[in-house]
Amino acid sequence: MLKLYIGNKNYSSWSMRPWVLLRQAGIVFEEVRVRFDSFEADSQFKRAIGAVSPTGKVPVLVDGDLVVWDTLAIAEYVAETHPEQHLWPQDAKARARARSVCAEMHSGFTALRGNCPMNIEADLATTGALLWRDKAAVRADVQRLVEMWTDLLAQYGGPLLFGEFTIADAFYAPVCMRLHSYGLPVPPHIQDYVQRVRQLPGVKAWIDEALTEQDFRAFEEPYRLQR
Amino acid sequence: MLKLYIGNKNYSSWSMRPWVLLRQAGIVFEEVRVRFDSFEADSQFKRAIGAVSPTGKVPVLVDGDLVVWDTLAIAEYVAETHPEQHLWPQDAKARARARSVCAEMHSGFTALRGNCPMNIEADLATTGALLWRDKAAVRADVQRLVEMWTDLLAQYGGPLLFGEFTIADAFYAPVCMRLHSYGLPVPPHIQDYVQRVRQLPGVKAWIDEALTEQDFRAFEEPYRLQR
Ligand SMILES: N[C@@H](CCC(=O)N[C@@H](CS)C(=O)NCC(=O)O)C(=O)O
Ligand SMILES: N[C@@H](CCC(=O)N[C@@H](CS)C(=O)NCC(=O)O)C(=O)O
Repeated sequence: MLKLYIGNKNYSSWSMRPWVLLRQAGIVFEEVRVRFDSFEADSQFKRAIGAVSPTGKVPVLVDGDLVVWDTLAIAEYVAETHPEQHLWPQDAKARARARSVCAEMHSGFTALRGNCPMNIEADLATTGALLWRDKAAVRADVQRLVEMWTDLLAQYGGPLLFGEFTIADAFYAPVCMRLHSYGLPVPPHIQDYVQRVRQLPGVKAWIDEALTEQDFRAFEEPYRLQR
Repeated sequence: MLKLYIGNKNYSSWSMRPWVLLRQAGIVFEEVRVRFDSFEADSQFKRAIGAVSPTGKVPVLVDGDLVVWDTLAIAEYVAETHPEQHLWPQDAKARARARSVCAEMHSGFTALRGNCPMNIEADLATTGALLWRDKAAVRADVQRLVEMWTDLLAQYGGPLLFGEFTIADAFYAPVCMRLHSYGLPVPPHIQDYVQRVRQLPGVKAWIDEALTEQDFRAFEEPYRLQR
């Protein structure tokens, strides 16, 4: 059976993407959660995941003796081994665009990712308002998201970015978590997309498990002194 | 005909990857070079490329009315539209690994990328020696490269990472440029791989054009007062 190594559900945005992808597609897999203690070389996390993957990061997908690391490579592998699921759009042009937006996420949106780390359980609206006021780069990242999603929802007719669920929605699911937790201001049709993503069964399952996890880590909590 | 928008050949490591891929595969394309003046919003570069791509970055591939941005998405699109070229390894497991190493490059090696920006024409061995002495993160990135390449060359038997030329070699070609320009110390079998990459016709063509370009930009030259 496929084995997916992930970090803490409340915090690990990269882990969330392939987990949501597999779950939403109904592909059976075994989840191996490697708890975050710290990312220091001698941490339990690093030692455990370092024994599985050469990069020492989650997520990692293991299929028999094959180790696939990095979300994008995992997504491509799952799409390729489950062609009947149409995890990429079927139309070649839409597929190229879907890969463009996923690759853009993979190395981009650094201000949003850096300033608004995922923290599903938290209500960070006050922090979000300060970041929105002070960080032009966060506003620029959100503006780009709004533009991208507006275009895609218009072009492919919704309800998701490329019509039905694809890898692109899984890739932007953690961003939907952030927009929600930090209460960042976006137009109503973008709010609606965020809500639709949150209600996808695969996403809802992740959120529910993140909420029950209750395994907090100070180094992943830049904005709360306590809880 | 395919149109590939690129930046300066001497500096633009992201542009180099798809250009080398297309050229090495013998796929005909039109090159559109958008000179770097600066990356400010009102720069000529930003205005020119912003008219083509929503991210305002190079590379961008245009095929008729389809715009594909971001190197990884471009590589997948080229591979998909030229299946006879086997730009990814043909074996499914090797392909998954090739995608893992490309995705790792795409969002990783930040210390090497940040400290050793590509500058093909320059001899930066003195700077390289200082960086090597002072920057543990650069040494760690190079160590990971050496490990990865050693494993792949052993497993697939060389001469390139997955035997014959694949997208993975195109993705690591700019890293080969850096190891060379900065004279970073690597074992002989890794040196040999770097030399083999530099001698690939598609890579050699890029290097030759970078050398004749002579279009220098202070903001891409952190280490030279003049030349
Ligand atoms: N490019 C990687 C990023 C993975 C990543 O950064 N994962 C984080 C957790 S969300 C991690 O494992 N960090 C450990 C570390 O940086 O040492 C991917 O897409 O899979
Ligand atoms: N993730 C992008 C990165 C592209 C990128 O950063 N390109 C640089 C030139 S090498 C650029 O256009 N920079 C302009 C800017 O950052 O404004 C890709 O893989 O294509």
